[in-house]
Amino acid sequence: MIIATTIKEVREQVAAWKREGLTVGLVPTMGYLHEGHASLVDASVKACDRTVASVFVNPTQFAPGEDLEAYPRDFERDCRILTEHGCDMVFHPAVSEMYYEDAATFVEIQSEMPKQLCGQTRPTHFKGVTTVVAKLFNICTPDKAFFGEKDAQQLAVIRRMVRDLAFGIEIVGCPIVREEDGLAKSSRNTYLNPEERQAALCLSKAIFAGKAMAEAGEKNADAIVAAMTEIVKAEPMAVIDYISAVDGVTMMPVTEIKGNTLFAMAVYIGKTRLIDNFSVEA
Amino acid sequence: MIIATTIKEVREQVAAWKREGLTVGLVPTMGYLHEGHASLVDASVKACDRTVASVFVNPTQFAPGEDLEAYPRDFERDCRILTEHGCDMVFHPAVSEMYYEDAATFVEIQSEMPKQLCGQTRPTHFKGVTTVVAKLFNICTPDKAFFGEKDAQQLAVIRRMVRDLAFGIEIVGCPIVREEDGLAKSSRNTYLNPEERQAALCLSKAIFAGKAMAEAGEKNADAIVAAMTEIVKAEPMAVIDYISAVDGVTMMPVTEIKGNTLFAMAVYIGKTRLIDNFSVEA
Repeated sequence: MIIATTIKEVREQVAAWKREGLTVGLVPTMGYLHEGHASLVDASVKACDRTVASVFVNPTQFAPGEDLEAYPRDFERDCRILTEHGCDMVFHPAVSEMYYEDAATFVEIQSEMPKQLCGQTRPTHFKGVTTVVAKLFNICTPDKAFFGEKDAQQLAVIRRMVRDLAFGIEIVGCPIVREEDGLAKSSRNTYLNPEERQAALCLSKAIFAGKAMAEAGEKNADAIVAAMTEIVKAEPMAVIDYISAVDGVTMMPVTEIKGNTLFAMAVYIGKTRLIDNFSVEA
Repeated sequence: MIIATTIKEVREQVAAWKREGLTVGLVPTMGYLHEGHASLVDASVKACDRTVASVFVNPTQFAPGEDLEAYPRDFERDCRILTEHGCDMVFHPAVSEMYYEDAATFVEIQSEMPKQLCGQTRPTHFKGVTTVVAKLFNICTPDKAFFGEKDAQQLAVIRRMVRDLAFGIEIVGCPIVREEDGLAKSSRNTYLNPEERQAALCLSKAIFAGKAMAEAGEKNADAIVAAMTEIVKAEPMAVIDYISAVDGVTMMPVTEIKGNTLFAMAVYIGKTRLIDNFSVEA
């Protein structure tokens, strides 16, 4: 696997592949890879001739006081996982390679969409996400890019950006990968002590219960959210950030399941903020 | 020359060219082409294997009350000029092809730069420019893109956007083309009645005088601006929007010529707002 740290190296390698007529898949990550990321690499390797993964803890999507410094990093381990899964190149830039000191150009969805769900407590988060992903798209010029459905709002935001700015890139969403006991895989799970790890199961329990209700025909989104909320509240270590039902495209609140509907939650377990979700089609 | 009205047609044609290993130049315009635009097409034809021009009066770079509706349009004439100059494809989309009704993603330089010069009276203008140009870049994926130096701040803003977002596109600035009597070519010159057309010469007169002072060794930018201002003020039909000296990269005001320095002006002649400029290197 090629390890590239500069934009120039990535551009040249991708251009060489394209000259050969090969297609390129991109898997943007913040590293500390788990089976969720690996499934994205697998999907890209299957769909594209060459796969590029980026490993970059993007400072612009963290607000002051969030866990930018603490965010777990292990690039050697990441490289091992990427190699095992058939990734052809990893792009691992320094912050100074990605951002000029006076960088001021942002790609921003200026609507209500990025203010919903995680945007309520992380108002600048998605502006950082769209900006860095647009930049990774420009650097890697992939044919397809792969994102996990665990970050459902991120996926919706990126789909909207790609639509609005006419990026010629197909966005592929990949299913949430879970631990055996149900907890959604996340690099942030590493923050949990054993007691918190146990408490964190309230998220997936609520997700599974809500999904079962929807699959059994419940159309009242508020009733499903109420049932999910009750399950999380039963866990003393859990503090709810939000549990909401929203339109799967616009991210705006809904009270009834109509079309693609997303049930999403963010819950603090101790100091760790975890997210989980499921989608249903009416 | 191919006339494309949809994003899909442009993408497919450009992809076909790229499969043949051909390079692509892009000349973004708002149409009503003059010799200034033609010089951009000439530069692209010379530098690239294939040239795409876009003709699109972009609504997002006009504020309410500006001349969006009145802006001159003559697509047949534009096609004639483009064909004569060897353009291979013109992209002429409807507004609905370029903007979804709920489009909300913007590319925006969030610094002082787009607030200087024209940004003082047109505060939302450059946000519209960067957004539409980013989108044209994504649609046409050119190797090089050509912009006139007459819109000096636009050129600086686009260079900054390309740098910050790592577009793999070379931005080429082309010199101002002038009428025989000195007036900078502009689609908006068509607004001028004969008396105004004569009065409009105060812009180029001031530009030439300022340039002569700088070339004669004057380093005091304020003195040059003062001399230019005096010349424009001598024209009774002229109302100055701004006459300023700024850093050629950041667009921030300077009082002394140091490095690349831009002297730029916007002047109303009747209801018509005209711009002109020159640059000097210290």
